[in-house]
Amino acid sequence: MVPSEEPPTARGARRRDVVVLGGGVVGAACAWRLAQRGSRVVLVDPGEGAGASRAAAGMLAPVSELHPGEEDLLALCLRAADGFAAYAAEVGAASGEATGYRACGTLAVALDAGDRARLARAREVQRSLGLEVEALTGRECRRAEPFLDPAVCGGSLVRGDHQVDPRRLLAGLLAAGARAGVRRVRARGEVVVRDGRAAGVRLLGGDPPGEPPGELPGELPGELPADVVVLATGARAQEHVPVRPVKGQVVRLRMPAGGHVLQRTVRGLVRDREVYLVPREDGELVVGATSEDRGFDQRVTAGAVHDLLRDAQALVPAVAELELVEVLARSRPGSPDNLPLIGSGDVPGLLLATGHHRNGVLLSGVTADAVAALAHGEDVVPEVAVCDPVRFGSPRAAREEVLVR
Amino acid sequence: MVPSEEPPTARGARRRDVVVLGGGVVGAACAWRLAQRGSRVVLVDPGEGAGASRAAAGMLAPVSELHPGEEDLLALCLRAADGFAAYAAEVGAASGEATGYRACGTLAVALDAGDRARLARAREVQRSLGLEVEALTGRECRRAEPFLDPAVCGGSLVRGDHQVDPRRLLAGLLAAGARAGVRRVRARGEVVVRDGRAAGVRLLGGDPPGEPPGELPGELPGELPADVVVLATGARAQEHVPVRPVKGQVVRLRMPAGGHVLQRTVRGLVRDREVYLVPREDGELVVGATSEDRGFDQRVTAGAVHDLLRDAQALVPAVAELELVEVLARSRPGSPDNLPLIGSGDVPGLLLATGHHRNGVLLSGVTADAVAALAHGEDVVPEVAVCDPVRFGSPRAAREEVLVR
Repeated sequence: MVPSEEPPTARGARRRDVVVLGGGVVGAACAWRLAQRGSRVVLVDPGEGAGASRAAAGMLAPVSELHPGEEDLLALCLRAADGFAAYAAEVGAASGEATGYRACGTLAVALDAGDRARLARAREVQRSLGLEVEALTGRECRRAEPFLDPAVCGGSLVRGDHQVDPRRLLAGLLAAGARAGVRRVRARGEVVVRDGRAAGVRLLGGDPPGEPPGELPGELPGELPADVVVLATGARAQEHVPVRPVKGQVVRLRMPAGGHVLQRTVRGLVRDREVYLVPREDGELVVGATSEDRGFDQRVTAGAVHDLLRDAQALVPAVAELELVEVLARSRPGSPDNLPLIGSGDVPGLLLATGHHRNGVLLSGVTADAVAALAHGEDVVPEVAVCDPVRFGSPRAAREEVLVR
Repeated sequence: MVPSEEPPTARGARRRDVVVLGGGVVGAACAWRLAQRGSRVVLVDPGEGAGASRAAAGMLAPVSELHPGEEDLLALCLRAADGFAAYAAEVGAASGEATGYRACGTLAVALDAGDRARLARAREVQRSLGLEVEALTGRECRRAEPFLDPAVCGGSLVRGDHQVDPRRLLAGLLAAGARAGVRRVRARGEVVVRDGRAAGVRLLGGDPPGEPPGELPGELPGELPADVVVLATGARAQEHVPVRPVKGQVVRLRMPAGGHVLQRTVRGLVRDREVYLVPREDGELVVGATSEDRGFDQRVTAGAVHDLLRDAQALVPAVAELELVEVLARSRPGSPDNLPLIGSGDVPGLLLATGHHRNGVLLSGVTADAVAALAHGEDVVPEVAVCDPVRFGSPRAAREEVLVR
């Protein structure tokens, strides 16, 4: 971090005004942490569940999601996973709401010999990095998960990859934020740059006419002034920063009470295609997900739903009998190197918290800690420091300006 | 019809009070026709689109839907199909709303040799009954519908089987009814039998507390007295009459503007499984439908959606790219002989209009005409007379009582 060029404000001086743009898990976590540290925080989001958090399955799976060559991302995700139980517990305590965190482990299974070989290669990479993973036979897989198809011929058990319910986590983060003083405005907004720095957020409407203006009392102003603006709009930040929308389609099923077909997260390779099934204690079963580079597009397609259901049924035939309760498409914020963008934006006063791609839920806590630290001129942990957007060449002048006065 | 035992009321005497239970296409059409003939009509329905009309694809297809041995049903459906254009036009004129009626014809196609043989056998039956159907080669099918899969190897073109949009038709029927004086109560109801006859309808709630009581002004009474009660609750009538719920699941897709993948209704045989695709001018494409005997069950299942999409894609691969906008399961009212139940119930004052199974939309007009006739002591056309519930042994005493005083 660049130190402030102005003398630090005295204790008890004016509280900082922060506006967080984007109310998904990342934005809500940032707002909460900033409010905990004494800022006056307004969270601006249309409140339509239009972001990726709404679709996320909530896998906390640094080991299962490992891709060769992404050691920086692995280190970041492992740090987040290590702290997730405590983070979830803190959200639960601060909000009074359960987050659905489950230390259930993850079973990756293979349907044919090629899939099994691919899992074996993945285990070699995982073990070469010191990660814990067990090889299972098909029979051992079915012993762990009796509803798996007899064709399942092998698997990898990762005892440390868990899950959380992103919708509950988000509700908890918003409730915790509200208790800490975060005010919410249900609207879209855009960053106002004035005299070369982020000066606030312009509201673009959102509440239908005649509705009360979000949870901000009184008249809704056209602009919210801010000392710091946090941009946490996920893939919608694509106009300002190097993120791209990566479309993901998911299906939500419901398992009957007392008849859960799976006990833990199952990730499958089905003739070289990937599918996952994430069972919750309340009976929800999330099946996902496509990964499509086709711009910002939230339309669910027939082909994607078909393929997800086909592959899920190939792994767990009883899926056919489950109720289909929801289909959804959302855009993940992908970045050029799959690491998020956490740090200063291209004008002073602007902090970025986007680009989390498939890991927004897992990384929400460490991102919020980092954003709160950066807003107070503190350093961030090394795993987050590598996420500084400077790596994509944001203007040097901007980074040298004071972020927060 | 049994003539009235009481002297007919003089012209200008008290108007009859009729309550129609069930606001799907059949109930709404009955209410409208009864109001047109001078009755004071209240239509009781919770208004949640919970009936089969909400799922119906709107195929008007007596020839394509023909099953051997069901000549009575064929005659009824042909009569309805012959009059449908005029009926739809009348609904349109009376309501000011378009019904989506399309004289587009129906193309049945076969995917493999077995399917083609089955289509050929169906044509023999159709022609033996004097129905018009043309045999097409695979190439001719694709010339008619270029998006069909190259594997399509033959078809039957039925130029006289058309379609309507059931949701628009229902909206039109309700609007036409309202203009004719039909009042609506958004509630569930049950028939009140007093002194051995239907005396009215007891309302079972429906509007949440504090909401205005449907469109009936003033206090919502606990009971609506009636001279005639029309039971048009579809499969929900199963507690009172011999209908059984036949679950149907459908998927609604959206074709892009200017990129309609189909021009007419396509019914497919896909390795001996049936699927249909009904394209509307507004871009909706309805894909259906399962036919499941599993009691009253409106849950959409993963397996059904998968199978419908799989078979639709087998016929029209471009379906994969279409937006999936809705999945829905509803219960059709099946009857023991697949003919509807139109006529007196088991107590005087009760008229039945249910059991329409797959043909409720097509038969809504002729059913309403018949119910209005029966309520006025008139005869019905022969095609409807065979639908008298007496064939299932409703008590003779009831049928001999006066229906309407």
